[in-house]
Amino acid sequence: MRWFVLLLLFLATGAAAAPREWVDGHRQQILDEYLPLLAIPNVAANRADIRRNADHIVAMMARRDLAPRLLESEDGTAPPLIYGEWRVPGATRTYILYAHYDGQPVTPEDWTVTPPFEPRLVGEGREARIYARSASDDKAGVMAILAAVDALRAENRRPAFNLKIVFEGEEEAGSPHLAALLRRHRETLASDGWVIVDGPAHQSGPPQLTLGVRGDVNMEVTVHGPARPLHSGHYGNWAPNPALMLAELLASMKDETGRVTISGFYDDVIPLTDAERAAIAAVPAPDASLRNELGLGWTEGDGATLTELINRPSLNINGMRSADVGANGRNVIPTQATAALDLRLVLGNTPDRQVQRVVDHIRAQGYEVLDRAPTIAERRRFPRIATVTREPGYPAERTPLDHPLAQSLSRAMRANGPFVLLPSLGGSLPLYLIRQELGAPSVTVALWNHDNNQHAEDENVRIDSLMNGIVTIAGIMTAE
Amino acid sequence: MRWFVLLLLFLATGAAAAPREWVDGHRQQILDEYLPLLAIPNVAANRADIRRNADHIVAMMARRDLAPRLLESEDGTAPPLIYGEWRVPGATRTYILYAHYDGQPVTPEDWTVTPPFEPRLVGEGREARIYARSASDDKAGVMAILAAVDALRAENRRPAFNLKIVFEGEEEAGSPHLAALLRRHRETLASDGWVIVDGPAHQSGPPQLTLGVRGDVNMEVTVHGPARPLHSGHYGNWAPNPALMLAELLASMKDETGRVTISGFYDDVIPLTDAERAAIAAVPAPDASLRNELGLGWTEGDGATLTELINRPSLNINGMRSADVGANGRNVIPTQATAALDLRLVLGNTPDRQVQRVVDHIRAQGYEVLDRAPTIAERRRFPRIATVTREPGYPAERTPLDHPLAQSLSRAMRANGPFVLLPSLGGSLPLYLIRQELGAPSVTVALWNHDNNQHAEDENVRIDSLMNGIVTIAGIMTAE
Repeated sequence: MRWFVLLLLFLATGAAAAPREWVDGHRQQILDEYLPLLAIPNVAANRADIRRNADHIVAMMARRDLAPRLLESEDGTAPPLIYGEWRVPGATRTYILYAHYDGQPVTPEDWTVTPPFEPRLVGEGREARIYARSASDDKAGVMAILAAVDALRAENRRPAFNLKIVFEGEEEAGSPHLAALLRRHRETLASDGWVIVDGPAHQSGPPQLTLGVRGDVNMEVTVHGPARPLHSGHYGNWAPNPALMLAELLASMKDETGRVTISGFYDDVIPLTDAERAAIAAVPAPDASLRNELGLGWTEGDGATLTELINRPSLNINGMRSADVGANGRNVIPTQATAALDLRLVLGNTPDRQVQRVVDHIRAQGYEVLDRAPTIAERRRFPRIATVTREPGYPAERTPLDHPLAQSLSRAMRANGPFVLLPSLGGSLPLYLIRQELGAPSVTVALWNHDNNQHAEDENVRIDSLMNGIVTIAGIMTAE
Repeated sequence: MRWFVLLLLFLATGAAAAPREWVDGHRQQILDEYLPLLAIPNVAANRADIRRNADHIVAMMARRDLAPRLLESEDGTAPPLIYGEWRVPGATRTYILYAHYDGQPVTPEDWTVTPPFEPRLVGEGREARIYARSASDDKAGVMAILAAVDALRAENRRPAFNLKIVFEGEEEAGSPHLAALLRRHRETLASDGWVIVDGPAHQSGPPQLTLGVRGDVNMEVTVHGPARPLHSGHYGNWAPNPALMLAELLASMKDETGRVTISGFYDDVIPLTDAERAAIAAVPAPDASLRNELGLGWTEGDGATLTELINRPSLNINGMRSADVGANGRNVIPTQATAALDLRLVLGNTPDRQVQRVVDHIRAQGYEVLDRAPTIAERRRFPRIATVTREPGYPAERTPLDHPLAQSLSRAMRANGPFVLLPSLGGSLPLYLIRQELGAPSVTVALWNHDNNQHAEDENVRIDSLMNGIVTIAGIMTAE
């Protein structure tokens, strides 16, 4: 079998090497195309700018015979999805490569290297970078996907699957029309899976492949005290203090290791598979350097690592407020105290069930739970009253490690060097929409230098990082 | 001995009746003198206004042969104490009657009955009131003391003690120069005790004699989390959350009945005497009506009444803050969480010892306690860090119920009808200064209608309340 292994090695090396050579030979050509794209302002709120971007990208795709067109919302006013495709005769699978062409809002006076829409190349060699809004987040995804197509065409190769391309125009505005657009263009967008090309590489350096995200739901708990603020001297020790009551309530929700003590909080969790556990264990642990950077003398989780812990449901206090402190403080018993809570969800959780568990816990502490402020009659009647409000939230999404999409992407990433495989991000993205509307799984490829200042001033992409990304994406396109 | 008791009763009745008749016959004359006094603006920050008040009051006192003069601060710029006296040959005691002639700042646009310094008489009969800033707080004290002198002079009577009169000019600004003024004029102000004429009557209606006040000290506790705000998705469940840590810390300070669980918190308390306990038990309990008004379904203290509870040291959370909630909330792990605490002190407590107990408790929960923000090295080293800051604070003050001053005042109040005797207010005043600088005890007489809007817009005094107050003060001046 030795000759067979050698042949495989040769093929693998060849597949990875060829786009690399093409990219090395076409750096200037790629930059000459990229910088004008970055010069078009792309804040989603400005619909005329978004259209200019869309038209420009459609032209870039037309030059590549990708049959581009705009997938519009029903009333035609939302930023359109840009769609293109490369049909491959005989292909048995169809994958969609996704990026977004809108960017975060800008505060031009904060930019120190160049104004946000005047892209500028700074530095030399490995440290050369392009500075501009969306240089990494996420026009780099748009450019890398199109350049990877060039690399394939140049060698007369073709993708290993029917390739569909989708570029979204309002991701940074929270994708308010994405569900409706997916539903409206369901036929066009039929596929076996989505590859999201977005986000920075792992903090330890290498690109990152993530197979899922946590879900998220926000809620607020307000505990009520006296109907009007009271003098803390005349009434202190007698009138119940809502800040203390809230403190007791919050303290009852977690133990000293940070484990949530709310009944059933971990019950719905679909356990990680052995393979997922192994993948998590293989991730370079950023714990020590993060603890150092953040000045943390301890961490929650009773010794578990950050990478392990982000695969559990969480309960975080985002903020807390009762009357005021510092110069605005007064000697009062406040009328109320509020905590904003953020629940992160993993596979198996639903926002409704998880919120209900928190509500049940509050009830179990003796509280009457309302979804509005109490009346005076309710205040007199119930010793403890909490007003609980919530947002809709959304569930987690994760593609199994043994799913063909995950397997194919892992092979492609590995062929291009070290990479980090994460079963799930700690953060949240509405990837459940893709499953809900189209029944398709998704994975996320994060390629750009992690110190790219995305969402902030002086956003940039390292040119090396961009070029490597093109090679990686060409590898993804051709991976069996 | 029966004739002797009858004689005492006759004398007591006579002493109370005579000023009443004089006051009833001189209502118009009293108002004609009072309204021009109220027309002089008296916010302490305006020193020229304060001088106009002082000159006006000196003239009022000169007309009464009270030998008035101004007791100035060393540099002559602070609002002066106005001093007067009525020496009584053969008197064995000297008491000082105190009121203050400055008033709270005003927001004229909020006043609905009359502008704050255009005094206006509104209503008829028992409900007739004078509206103006300081109508009750505390030019009513100034006017009532001087009118009581008139009532005595009209009947050729004289005080039962050497009467000294002190009117302060910056009480509402926190009496920043009072200690220095008392020290500087110690000889002039020698006495056997002070009678503070200030404050509203008891909520149940009758005037109130209080023999003390709680002390007070404020502190702030800030618990530290990560050195910069963290994304609650990427780091939630791993990075310690300072809002939760603060909640746990605060929850550890009190039990479910509101009793402070900090070690030694009640140790220094000088117990109430049996007589003081009896006095407290005799106070009309406002608990039921207050619970109804404030919408309280329970109260702290395990069944103890408000009047009992304000005689214990207290720990109140004045305010609490970590990141933010509501529209300004974000999905973060905050960098810090702060609670503002208010400790009320009773006889036996000192601000320093009581604060130290809270600090020791925080240490016992595993915290490194600093008086400043931690360095990054300290953050890395100590799992839990709290920054604790404090104000100086001041101790409680209480005159024993069997002290001659308390006994004399009780008799005088009783002679004029029902009154409430409180061993201590729940609130705080710096009465310890009088003991500290002059070695003298003090009691407080609160006479004006309790719905007087003091410190707010539409401040007022009921004319009946003012007239009754003059009779009460005349009774105090003549009480053995």
